Amino acid sequence: MAEAYELSALEARQKIKEGTLTSERLIQSCLERINRRSGEVGAWTFIDPELALLSAINSDKIGNLGSLGGLPIGVKDIIDTKTMPTTYGSSIYGLNQPDKDAACVHKVREHGGVILGKTVTTEFAWRNPGKTKNPHNPLHTPGGSSSGSAAGVADFQMPLAFGTQTAGSVIRPASYCGVVGFKPTIGTHDRSGVKELSNYLDTVGVFARSVADVSFFDFALRNEAIPDLSIFDEQPPRIGLMVPFRNDASEVVLNNLEQVSKIAETKGATITDIPSSTSFERLADIQTVIMLGDAGKALEWEYEFHPERLIQFYKDSIATGQTISTKGLAAMKSKADAAREKYMELFERIDIILTLSSGDEAPKGLGFTGDPLFNRVWTLLGWPCVNIPFGKGSNELPLGVQVIGPTESDSKTLAAANWLESALLQE
Amino acid sequence: MAEAYELSALEARQKIKEGTLTSERLIQSCLERINRRSGEVGAWTFIDPELALLSAINSDKIGNLGSLGGLPIGVKDIIDTKTMPTTYGSSIYGLNQPDKDAACVHKVREHGGVILGKTVTTEFAWRNPGKTKNPHNPLHTPGGSSSGSAAGVADFQMPLAFGTQTAGSVIRPASYCGVVGFKPTIGTHDRSGVKELSNYLDTVGVFARSVADVSFFDFALRNEAIPDLSIFDEQPPRIGLMVPFRNDASEVVLNNLEQVSKIAETKGATITDIPSSTSFERLADIQTVIMLGDAGKALEWEYEFHPERLIQFYKDSIATGQTISTKGLAAMKSKADAAREKYMELFERIDIILTLSSGDEAPKGLGFTGDPLFNRVWTLLGWPCVNIPFGKGSNELPLGVQVIGPTESDSKTLAAANWLESALLQE
Repeated sequence: MAEAYELSALEARQKIKEGTLTSERLIQSCLERINRRSGEVGAWTFIDPELALLSAINSDKIGNLGSLGGLPIGVKDIIDTKTMPTTYGSSIYGLNQPDKDAACVHKVREHGGVILGKTVTTEFAWRNPGKTKNPHNPLHTPGGSSSGSAAGVADFQMPLAFGTQTAGSVIRPASYCGVVGFKPTIGTHDRSGVKELSNYLDTVGVFARSVADVSFFDFALRNEAIPDLSIFDEQPPRIGLMVPFRNDASEVVLNNLEQVSKIAETKGATITDIPSSTSFERLADIQTVIMLGDAGKALEWEYEFHPERLIQFYKDSIATGQTISTKGLAAMKSKADAAREKYMELFERIDIILTLSSGDEAPKGLGFTGDPLFNRVWTLLGWPCVNIPFGKGSNELPLGVQVIGPTESDSKTLAAANWLESALLQE
Repeated sequence: MAEAYELSALEARQKIKEGTLTSERLIQSCLERINRRSGEVGAWTFIDPELALLSAINSDKIGNLGSLGGLPIGVKDIIDTKTMPTTYGSSIYGLNQPDKDAACVHKVREHGGVILGKTVTTEFAWRNPGKTKNPHNPLHTPGGSSSGSAAGVADFQMPLAFGTQTAGSVIRPASYCGVVGFKPTIGTHDRSGVKELSNYLDTVGVFARSVADVSFFDFALRNEAIPDLSIFDEQPPRIGLMVPFRNDASEVVLNNLEQVSKIAETKGATITDIPSSTSFERLADIQTVIMLGDAGKALEWEYEFHPERLIQFYKDSIATGQTISTKGLAAMKSKADAAREKYMELFERIDIILTLSSGDEAPKGLGFTGDPLFNRVWTLLGWPCVNIPFGKGSNELPLGVQVIGPTESDSKTLAAANWLESALLQE
C-alpha cells in the first residue's frame, strides 16, 4: 500500500471517513516525509510537529467533522495564522504573531482541516526569494512567490496548500514544480488577513497534485461540494489555442503545448487558433503599472520605517509606485476593467483557452524565481486559471500548460481542466 | 617598438606632431586590430575601414590640425553621426541616417579627430544588451550601456571613445573592462544629437586607458588644454572613504578597495572614513523614479508606434514612467536638486571621495550588463566620477575603484585620480 503522505486529498479524506486512516497517521506520515526532505527542498518557514500532531489527534477525537476533516494544509506565509508566526517572508516581520487567522485559514479550520505549517513565500509575495529549492533539482528555482506551497505539494509533503497570485505566483511555481495550481476568479476567496501587495490583483489560490483535489479544496473554501468535473466526458471541450508572447517562449514549451493540443484534438476536443494581438499583450504593461502603484501604497509603512531591511528592488519599486498619480492609477484600473469586459468575447465559441503556464521549465539558480510574463495578463483579467503538468524541459524539469476560463465559470473551467488532465494521463 | 594601436592618445598625438606617425598608419593599425579581434569582442555596430582611412589620409594632408588632430575616436551608437548610420541599439532605427552630427561629434571633428566608427550600445542606452563581449573573457558581460566603447578601448582597438551615463553606463563598463572611464559634472558636454533617455540624468562621458588620456580628450571637447594633473604631487589628496550599499558588494571588491586605500595612505594621502546613511542611499530610489519618469517621455514615440519592437521590460517601464505624475516627477527632481546642494558638505575637509565602481567584477552571461547600484546616486548628484582599474576579481576579471569630486571640480578630481593611478601603478 502507498504511504499515507502519497495519498491525494480526496483519497485520504475517503479513508479517514471509512475509518481506515486517522488524521494522526496521515499527518505523522507527512511530518516524516518533511523531516527526510527538509534539507533538500526547504518548503517550510514554520513547522511545529507537536502542534500539528496535537491538532490531528484532536481532529480524530471529535470525529473529523467538516469537508476537510483531518486533512493537512500548508499555508503560504503571506497569510495570517493565529497559532503560528507569520513573517510575510520579511525580516521586518521576523517576530510577528498575528492575533487572528486570515479568512481563508479560518475557513479551513471551520471545515475541519489541520494547519500543518507555514510555507516559504518570497518577501511580500514579490521578488526577493526564500530558501526553497525545486524538488526535482535543487539547483533550480521552484518559482515564486508561492515557492514552498508548490514545492511541498510536488514533493508529497502535504496534499493541499494555499498560494496567492498577483502576477504569476500560483501558476508559475505550479508549472515549475509539476503540480496543479488553481487561481480562481478574482474575488472568490476573502483576502482578509492576507498581506496585501496589490488591492486590484491579489488572488488567493490553491495547490494539489490533481485537478480533482484543487477543485475539492477550493470549493470547500466556498462552502460548496466538489463541482461536477465530468461535464465534458460526453462532449469534449471547445478549446481556443492562444499564445500571447510567443516570441518569449522556448521552443521546447511551444512544442509541448502543440503536443497537448494534438492529444486533446485526438480525444475529441475542437481546437481553434486564437491570434494574440499587440493590444492584448499591452495589458501586461497595465498589469505592471497597477501592481507598482498598488504596492507603493500596500508597503508604504515598511518603506517609511524599515527601508534598511528592504532590498534595493523594493525601495525603487515602492518609490516609483508612490509617484504614480492616483488619477493615473485609477485610469489604468479603468482600462483593466474595460479589458475584463471586452475580452470575454474570446469565449463566444470556445469553453476554455489553452496557453502556456510559463516561458520555459524552471530556470537554474535560486536568486530569481522566474518571469511571470505568461501569467500577468490573465491575472489582470481576473479569470480562473489552472496549471496542468505535462512534459519535460531540456533539463528534465516539469513543464505545464495553462487552462483559462471566463470569469466566474470556475466549475466549468475546472471540469475542462479535469478532462484535459485525463486525456494527457492516457498518453 | 609598440604597435601603433597600443599607443595612448597623448603618445600618438605627440608622434603625429613630431612627424614620426601619421593618422593613416595609426588608423590602419587600429583597423587591423579590430579586424583580428572583432569576432571575439564585437565592439562595433558600424565600421567602414575605407571611410576611416580616407578621413585619416585627409587629416594627414591638411596637417593634423586641432588638439585631437588625426586621432581615432569611437562613438557610442546612441550619438548621431552624419557620416554613419545611428541605430540607438534599436531595430526601430535600423535604417536611421542622421543628417547632422551630435554636438560632441561636431567638437571632435572641429578639433581634427577622426570618427573611427560606431560602438555598440544597449538599446536606447538602457537594459537590452548588444553583441559585445568582455575582452578579458567572452563569457562575461562588458557592462553597459556603453559596452562597445569600454570593450574596444580595453582591447586596444582605439585609444579614445565616447560613452553616456544615466545610471552607471560609463563607470560600470569601464570597471568591468579595466579601463579609465570619466563622467564629468552633469551638463559639461552639450547633449544635442544624443538620443535622450533621461533629461535630468543623461551625461556624456569618455573612455581611455589612462587618466591623462581621458583628461586630454574631455578637455579638448571643452576647447581647453589638458588640465594640470600634478597638483597633488607635493601634497597628496585628502581622501574620504565612503561605501554606500556595502552589503551589496562582494568581499573581493571590498578588500580591493581597502587595499587601494592603504596604498594611498602609504603614499601620503590622508584617509577619512565617511559613513554612508539610509537617507543618502535612498537617493538611489529617487534616481530610479526620475529615470523612469523621464524615459516615459523620452521614448513615448517608440512605445506608441513600435511597441512590437520593444522588449517587455521597456514596455512595462515606459508605461510606468508615463503614469508618474508631472507633479510627482518634479517633486523628485526638487529633492535631487536639494541633495546636489546638501551633500556638497561631504567635501568640506576632503578633496575627493573614494568608493566602489561596481559591486563585483563583470558577471557571467551576456543577457544582462550588470547592476548600476554603485553609480546611481553619484549620477543623480551630477558630480564628476572616474573609474581607475585596479585588482582582479575571483574570475581574474578587472576590478576598479571610483574617484568622485565635488560638482564643477573636474580638473581637481582628475588630478586626484591621476595621483591615485600613479600610486597604484607603483605597486
